[in-house]
Amino acid sequence: MKFVLRCLRNSSCRRASISECGRHGDKTLETPMCMLYTRGGNAPYLGSDMFKKIQSLPFMAMVSLTHWAEHADVLAEYQKGVAKFSSMEDFLFYCCTHDTATEVPQGYNEKSGVAVWSRGGKIKVDVPSFMKIQEALQPDWYQALSDGDTSETSSDKRVQKAVDRTLAFLDEILAEHRKMERLKNSEVFGVIEGGYNIEERLRSAKETAARPVSGFTIGGFHNIGLKSGDRTIEDVGEIVKKTISTLPEDKPRLMSSLWGPDSILEGIEQGLDIFDTSYPLKMSFNHDKFIEHNSGAGFHIDLNHKRYCEDFGPVLENCSCYTCQRFSRAYINHLLNTSELLAGVLLSLHNLHHYLEYFESIRCALSEDTFDELKTLIKKQKPETVDTSD
Amino acid sequence: MKFVLRCLRNSSCRRASISECGRHGDKTLETPMCMLYTRGGNAPYLGSDMFKKIQSLPFMAMVSLTHWAEHADVLAEYQKGVAKFSSMEDFLFYCCTHDTATEVPQGYNEKSGVAVWSRGGKIKVDVPSFMKIQEALQPDWYQALSDGDTSETSSDKRVQKAVDRTLAFLDEILAEHRKMERLKNSEVFGVIEGGYNIEERLRSAKETAARPVSGFTIGGFHNIGLKSGDRTIEDVGEIVKKTISTLPEDKPRLMSSLWGPDSILEGIEQGLDIFDTSYPLKMSFNHDKFIEHNSGAGFHIDLNHKRYCEDFGPVLENCSCYTCQRFSRAYINHLLNTSELLAGVLLSLHNLHHYLEYFESIRCALSEDTFDELKTLIKKQKPETVDTSD
Repeated sequence: MKFVLRCLRNSSCRRASISECGRHGDKTLETPMCMLYTRGGNAPYLGSDMFKKIQSLPFMAMVSLTHWAEHADVLAEYQKGVAKFSSMEDFLFYCCTHDTATEVPQGYNEKSGVAVWSRGGKIKVDVPSFMKIQEALQPDWYQALSDGDTSETSSDKRVQKAVDRTLAFLDEILAEHRKMERLKNSEVFGVIEGGYNIEERLRSAKETAARPVSGFTIGGFHNIGLKSGDRTIEDVGEIVKKTISTLPEDKPRLMSSLWGPDSILEGIEQGLDIFDTSYPLKMSFNHDKFIEHNSGAGFHIDLNHKRYCEDFGPVLENCSCYTCQRFSRAYINHLLNTSELLAGVLLSLHNLHHYLEYFESIRCALSEDTFDELKTLIKKQKPETVDTSD
Repeated sequence: MKFVLRCLRNSSCRRASISECGRHGDKTLETPMCMLYTRGGNAPYLGSDMFKKIQSLPFMAMVSLTHWAEHADVLAEYQKGVAKFSSMEDFLFYCCTHDTATEVPQGYNEKSGVAVWSRGGKIKVDVPSFMKIQEALQPDWYQALSDGDTSETSSDKRVQKAVDRTLAFLDEILAEHRKMERLKNSEVFGVIEGGYNIEERLRSAKETAARPVSGFTIGGFHNIGLKSGDRTIEDVGEIVKKTISTLPEDKPRLMSSLWGPDSILEGIEQGLDIFDTSYPLKMSFNHDKFIEHNSGAGFHIDLNHKRYCEDFGPVLENCSCYTCQRFSRAYINHLLNTSELLAGVLLSLHNLHHYLEYFESIRCALSEDTFDELKTLIKKQKPETVDTSD
């Protein structure tokens, strides 16, 4: 895997490209970028054919142990890996531990393994079972097993334990990885843990960077942003920035979470390169929030509101997405009104389109040195929430 | 509208073509045929782009008052009709009264109007409001308002009343229809009522045929086939056959219901020409029955069963549908297992493909005079139900 810096805005904020990785060595990924969030190899609402309707979709998808730990034996039997199983051979796959859009219960990790919460309940994943799962999935990149169960209230001792365990897992994984024929084209991402403790973060970063990993995943902010009222990326910005500043420059840094448009900019300024689409998809498949859509940066409208029932314009004027080119607000209002699943499909396509276009603008802004202008513009676009009380 | 008989197997069973109808006068529909069942202009699980993946799909869709009676003002305001609103301009639309896949409560029709059960509850539709809805929808064909609330236990008096009301509605509708500019390209289908009373059926048929209708809809077998244990089309075969035998030969006969493959053959033998896809779609979107798929004629498997979790073959060997060309039984089993909506999309595509291919084989068999051979073949393929108890 080759990570080449294209331009550096300041010591952390950067634009880069990744090539010679995984099954599609001839293609190049441009960062900052956004992986396609999937649940077990399927983006909620969208069949693989619908992906083709989305412009700017990078060819990298994310899958989690949450959806595969329970069924890895199926893939082991299949022998050809998760990409082919999901009919998504055109994509590279990154395997993370927990589903980004689902809450992870606290207090279940152990010295010998990590608790993964699948549909059937808790599954303890230790290094041997972890490696078996990876061998079955055959992802192009995978996040090493780690203890990320640390929050702001965790004791220093607990945080230290998290870092120790994570490093021990990593050493075991790297040793096993070398022996596995089926993983010879896969890359390991080391996980930086340490919760809200900056000393432990720095120790974790230093130790992880000393090992032969291909990239870094920032973990350990237990479910950040998942529940309203939770801390957001802005709150942990300083820790992330300081931690990242000690990492080598020639490897990608990834942090998967529910990132709103503002947080994306913050994360990039802190030095992150890779995000995922769980935010726009969560907005479409969580039935509580189903009604919202996000058009680009912070503009939300509730298309379920009766005021749109006779609005025959597109979801967003001048939008080139599949949904806006073909359907009206009134039609989507009608689909929501009659609980048609197609509403989710169409909103997902629109939301994804805008989220990915947003990354495209960010890359442009970094290349053309107009990042500050973009930031000012985004901050001006305060979220507009339509009053649904009438 | 032009209805041309291609061949007649016996006095009732026939193969025909319909041309010069509605917005697509240049195209020809071949019967026996199957309209695409939609809920308010949307086939469950499938966006209009997914339709294109289905071979043999006729360009005729069905929509019901169930989904539009409540929202017709939106379409009235829109002015361009339901086909354009749903981004399905390539389709002709037939508007029926009740959603075929939903049960209709008994005992609510009145002399002046019919009870339609929308999402918001009961809506009384009388002739003036019915005509307003049709004017808003601008369907190519529409079923006249009728009192079909008759079952096997209805008294002769109730059945007679149903026929009287239906004829009175039809006269009013035909008078209004002529005056409406927006319905000048629409055709009215008269409804034959009369429940299980053959005398009333024959009276209804005779009187309806005497009016300037473009086709006939067979109604009045209250929710036939909707609940297990209900009567099936075979049970009312004699009545349908006798009724149809008195109708003129140069107009299509339609009966929308949940038709299994066996019933389709029966219906065609009784003289019916037009059916709909609510059966294969109901199998995919009714969550109780979600697990089943139907491949052609009577072969059901439960892909949710654990025996398929490592079955990497297609749903059906040698099937040319989108789903079977790309995905395995194991993948669909995995989607069902993780409650992914894509399971419904893929099963719908497969089920629709087979249901429509089945109609294609029937048309072939009628043209080539091999209908009896087809019937024997279908009867041999007894439904196989997989034991799910282990």
